[in-house]
Amino acid sequence: MAVYTEVTDEDLTKFCQDLGLGEVLSCKGIAEGVENSNFLLVTQQDNYILTLYEKRVNPDDLPFFLGLLEHLETAGLACPKPVRSPKGEVLHTLSGRPAAVVTFLSGMWPRNIHTYHTSELGSAMAQMHVAGEGFELSRPNSLSVNDWRKVLDSCEGRGDSVVSGITQELTAELDYLEAHWPKNLPTGIIHADLFPDNVFFRGEKLSGLIDFYFACNDILAYDLAICLNAWCFEPDGSFNVTKAKKMLRAYGKVRTLSTEEIQALPLLARGAAIRFLLTRLYDWLNTPEGAMVTPHDPRKFLQKLRFHQAVKSPADYGLDPKT
Amino acid sequence: MAVYTEVTDEDLTKFCQDLGLGEVLSCKGIAEGVENSNFLLVTQQDNYILTLYEKRVNPDDLPFFLGLLEHLETAGLACPKPVRSPKGEVLHTLSGRPAAVVTFLSGMWPRNIHTYHTSELGSAMAQMHVAGEGFELSRPNSLSVNDWRKVLDSCEGRGDSVVSGITQELTAELDYLEAHWPKNLPTGIIHADLFPDNVFFRGEKLSGLIDFYFACNDILAYDLAICLNAWCFEPDGSFNVTKAKKMLRAYGKVRTLSTEEIQALPLLARGAAIRFLLTRLYDWLNTPEGAMVTPHDPRKFLQKLRFHQAVKSPADYGLDPKT
Repeated sequence: MAVYTEVTDEDLTKFCQDLGLGEVLSCKGIAEGVENSNFLLVTQQDNYILTLYEKRVNPDDLPFFLGLLEHLETAGLACPKPVRSPKGEVLHTLSGRPAAVVTFLSGMWPRNIHTYHTSELGSAMAQMHVAGEGFELSRPNSLSVNDWRKVLDSCEGRGDSVVSGITQELTAELDYLEAHWPKNLPTGIIHADLFPDNVFFRGEKLSGLIDFYFACNDILAYDLAICLNAWCFEPDGSFNVTKAKKMLRAYGKVRTLSTEEIQALPLLARGAAIRFLLTRLYDWLNTPEGAMVTPHDPRKFLQKLRFHQAVKSPADYGLDPKT
Repeated sequence: MAVYTEVTDEDLTKFCQDLGLGEVLSCKGIAEGVENSNFLLVTQQDNYILTLYEKRVNPDDLPFFLGLLEHLETAGLACPKPVRSPKGEVLHTLSGRPAAVVTFLSGMWPRNIHTYHTSELGSAMAQMHVAGEGFELSRPNSLSVNDWRKVLDSCEGRGDSVVSGITQELTAELDYLEAHWPKNLPTGIIHADLFPDNVFFRGEKLSGLIDFYFACNDILAYDLAICLNAWCFEPDGSFNVTKAKKMLRAYGKVRTLSTEEIQALPLLARGAAIRFLLTRLYDWLNTPEGAMVTPHDPRKFLQKLRFHQAVKSPADYGLDPKT
């Protein structure tokens, strides 16, 4: 769940008046997201999402996140658009917290992934990468290749209680990734967390991307590598090459992938797998029993990592190796 | 928070089609209520609340609760109205759970109580009591005077770890209440849980009553007694007689209170205080640390109980004793 801060009706009424949103008809806390307090806000004017930023978000990052949404939406991407105050501010204050109001996107995130989902995802991701060009702010990826070892170290070897030998296995993998991580691939704004729950669909059509709170500047193809992990494995752990192929092809139609980017995919996919494996392992080891948030099982990403380690060429992701 | 059951987009799409609600535009779990899974459902047609009934609700009670909402709404009360299927059913099935869809009520529940709130509340409660007449189903109150001792017994004397001597104090109070509980007051449908979070306002006007899952047949004035406890004490524990007076007067304008009902108010208020004190004490003693739901501090209701014990006559609630 995700409502950490209580908002009084009086404060909210004034807040919405100040923003010119009209009378508040309803404001309900949403049981989604784990970092911030999110509310579905219905006013006489429209539906919105109200977010109160809690302590886990660095307030210095908020101008980047909100500015990025506005930049992408203006460039035509289907993503939430922040509401500016009459003074032109996108970052507001409510109940003593930094707060933002963004437009409401219709759609539902898919629980069962079909090939039309990954095809739509590929196009939208490429559109986002293209639309990100020219955005004037930047933010380093705080969970990239040089940060992963810190996460492993902070598990203090206790990962072996989850999977015997995992600490040694991941140490060897990090040695390899740190030595071979690509340095000259095209970079730009990436979403960095495009899991199914952050992608809305209406029927078979993508209707929006949300939750840009991991967005940063990094290798563009790394976003694809994350989605190979997040969208292209079946619940039983098997890799669905058709879903991967559809995603990569649809991406390529909007933004051409270079040979270097394609060749790097297996390595980037290993990196993406270990990035989520490590944070999930850490959360798994450090979430008290009965906590409000149920941690994800890290073992699924170990399976995915091992799959990518065994990949011989990008052809295993459904790409013609000659292109 | 209150989302215990995950609903797939496919199941929901079919469910809404079958109910004739049009395309689903959004469905978000709401962080409200602790018994059931609640979703704010936006379709092309309208906004609704979708509820999946979880294990703590007795399915045999659902026809009563849903039928009551329909009865009250038809009688003109501002409350959610269940959506009937083309076959005429109000109780549906979704994701393997009993499910209902009700109309969405605009408004917010008041965090800071003003006298206009209690005045509006009094009128609406009386309207509900009158509107409940003629409803063909009935449901006994499972938490009335003869049930309280079981709750105290199930605390196994551990209440004394919260307040020293409380078990003895409450035993004596139950002896008194069981011996003196009124037997001949007017009965009917009561809400039995009209706390502020179940009453919506738009500005200073009441816009709806929600959450009828404690509704039952009992002494009508007992609903007033519950609201004396729930609405008329200040955060510092002091009793605000103006709020009580406004509530009782507004009630009396819609449904006349008999002398017997007025005279019984202090006793009924003691009963209402101990009813919430006991269930909160039980939850306080039996909620594991770090659980999803934070229990209410039972001591506030001990303060309220002691206030009502000291009340000399209904005049202390702002009522003219001669009326």
